[in-house]
Amino acid sequence: LPNKLPHVGTTIFTVMSKLAADVGALNLAQGFPSFGADPVLLDLVNQAMRANHNQYAPMAGVPMLRDAIAQKTIDCYGVNYDPDTEITVTSGATEALFAAITAVVQTPTSGSAPDEVIVFEPAYDSYVPAVELAGGRPVYISLAPPHYAIDWAEVAAKITDRTRLIVINTPHNPTGRVWTIDDVNELARLADRHNLFVVADEVYEHITFDGRVHHSLMHHPVLRERTFMVGSFGKTFHITGWKIGYCLAPKALTEAFRKIHQFLTFSVSTPMQYALAEYLKDPEPYRSLSAFYERKRDVFLEAIAGSRLVFTPSEGTFFQNVSYAAITPERDAALAVRLTHEIGVASIPVSVFYHQKTDHQILRFCFAKDDDILREAGARLTKWS
Amino acid sequence: LPNKLPHVGTTIFTVMSKLAADVGALNLAQGFPSFGADPVLLDLVNQAMRANHNQYAPMAGVPMLRDAIAQKTIDCYGVNYDPDTEITVTSGATEALFAAITAVVQTPTSGSAPDEVIVFEPAYDSYVPAVELAGGRPVYISLAPPHYAIDWAEVAAKITDRTRLIVINTPHNPTGRVWTIDDVNELARLADRHNLFVVADEVYEHITFDGRVHHSLMHHPVLRERTFMVGSFGKTFHITGWKIGYCLAPKALTEAFRKIHQFLTFSVSTPMQYALAEYLKDPEPYRSLSAFYERKRDVFLEAIAGSRLVFTPSEGTFFQNVSYAAITPERDAALAVRLTHEIGVASIPVSVFYHQKTDHQILRFCFAKDDDILREAGARLTKWS
Ligand SMILES: CSCCC(=O)C(=O)O
Ligand SMILES: CSCCC(=O)C(=O)O
Repeated sequence: LPNKLPHVGTTIFTVMSKLAADVGALNLAQGFPSFGADPVLLDLVNQAMRANHNQYAPMAGVPMLRDAIAQKTIDCYGVNYDPDTEITVTSGATEALFAAITAVVQTPTSGSAPDEVIVFEPAYDSYVPAVELAGGRPVYISLAPPHYAIDWAEVAAKITDRTRLIVINTPHNPTGRVWTIDDVNELARLADRHNLFVVADEVYEHITFDGRVHHSLMHHPVLRERTFMVGSFGKTFHITGWKIGYCLAPKALTEAFRKIHQFLTFSVSTPMQYALAEYLKDPEPYRSLSAFYERKRDVFLEAIAGSRLVFTPSEGTFFQNVSYAAITPERDAALAVRLTHEIGVASIPVSVFYHQKTDHQILRFCFAKDDDILREAGARLTKWS
Repeated sequence: LPNKLPHVGTTIFTVMSKLAADVGALNLAQGFPSFGADPVLLDLVNQAMRANHNQYAPMAGVPMLRDAIAQKTIDCYGVNYDPDTEITVTSGATEALFAAITAVVQTPTSGSAPDEVIVFEPAYDSYVPAVELAGGRPVYISLAPPHYAIDWAEVAAKITDRTRLIVINTPHNPTGRVWTIDDVNELARLADRHNLFVVADEVYEHITFDGRVHHSLMHHPVLRERTFMVGSFGKTFHITGWKIGYCLAPKALTEAFRKIHQFLTFSVSTPMQYALAEYLKDPEPYRSLSAFYERKRDVFLEAIAGSRLVFTPSEGTFFQNVSYAAITPERDAALAVRLTHEIGVASIPVSVFYHQKTDHQILRFCFAKDDDILREAGARLTKWS
């Protein structure tokens, strides 16, 4: 058997969730809510199932849901996407990322150099395997705490005539940073000049804090024509286990995308698509999401305010990074395991998001948790520190 | 943008389902039931959602569901698969097929010849694109009506030192043929001698007729160690739109498989997995499925008995092929469209399942439909013929 993806082991999310469950720790590791989804949404799924919406959905998605996504995109960003030719419903954002990358990266033919794909790290762990399976070569731009600022001159310097794609993520997992409008404009300039495509992981599009807005790449006229925008109902509606996402891209890109999607999963849960189509008619759940998570972030930050942990408040997502460098010299991966065992608080070591496991002594905590969990985790961390 | 999968257009399933809907035809084209799923199963999904099973499932699948699949595999085939290391829940059989093929086919490196994959045609339309995206080369064995018998000497002759994988499908879509035990033994001999892996699309495992048994490849000790067996809850429980399938494979193969699955979709609908785990405790629904569909097949065959259509009764699946050669010389693709318009009966032309669109003048009708639809479609076809 060929050893595809030789450096891939069990994901950190699986490892830490299992460890947290085994030792009964508070799980602030894997990014999912501890609280329930909206019962209104569950009712809608139940109704859709009873209405016999249980057979194959159209390959691109249920038309009502694509229409609803188009409407939301106009409402949120003032941008039009044609539901028939520019919107595709996917088996979670993961499938959308895989399909977009596979659509763009050329399989190397005998003698040709591989396509290069620029990836900013720390990076979510699915981008690079998708690039590699498509036969591409990742080119890394490594960002550092506390601000993880992008040096756009460095990006420009790493672009070659083999560069075909840039993968970006804002609001950013794991760091909680949000792109500025300057970042968007710099990207647009480079993408335009070097004829690059962009995969934009915007799954936390509805979670930004302290008055920040999410600058979707869709909103930039140059980028709109070059970008696969990937969104996630799992992150927005507290249903990470339903695995429903979407990809917005101009017609030619969507055509290429759907050719891959068609053979990856073909279509997506029909009853849940009908339910989401109906549920999207009310903008309140996603409009209120930033405030909801900003409060949770603050509950957590308040609970660790008396500790020796050092942090910049998260700007978006449901993750807070903290530096423990003032407390112990241990490696982050070792510390994440030790804290799970010793004080019953599970987190994710940020080094796993770097291809060379660069250790800045930072842990990521997910604050999509009930308040009492956040307070108790904060209290334990404060006592430990 | 590279033109990945240049010969892929909109699938025939999408085309015919849309045409059938547009003209209000009886849809005997795409393979899905016209009738509802078991309300007991819908209740179980509803309960799982209310019990807060709405966040990420484990990457390999909910343990209870993997245990239930292991138990069903023992009950049906007397074969043991370890739920921890040999069973993976997937986003439908389509994802399982894609992941298995991607796990096995080596991406060609500069100068190397591509891996060869043997595919029997007529073939379901997702096998070959998966082979091509992985960088492999399909090698076709073309089977012909009325019996679609496999000439194993021809298969042996097409095996080269580049052959790595054979994709098989029994009970077979689109023809409704079921492999004999001799076919299984011949395959085992070749796979063993030439060190080949096998992807076995067994999604119709519970639908065989006239006393035939399904010979799962899992049951053969040599093939068990070389085979990715792909199953589908969609086909078995009348829920094609839920997109939940599974892959059974020995430990080393499952390890390679999960490395791909992890980045294709990561995990599968949590509430539906919990529901299926509970629902599988009762074997009656899948034990009674062959009788259920055999009766449907007979309702359809009776309704076309007075026509000039020629057929061999389907041996399994929910598809019946018929030859119209005695009636008209038209190409099957043209006729399928014409019949949809003129008599309001949609079908699938079998030529689309051949890479060179070989036309044996055969249409495929799906009989997973309510009896009155089958009788009315049969009456219209009889009148037309
Ligand atoms: C698919 S598991 C990863 C969940 C997540 O987005 C995270 O924890 O970073
Ligand atoms: C995924 S659409 C195809 C459904 C099916 O299996 C068929 O009609 O052959």
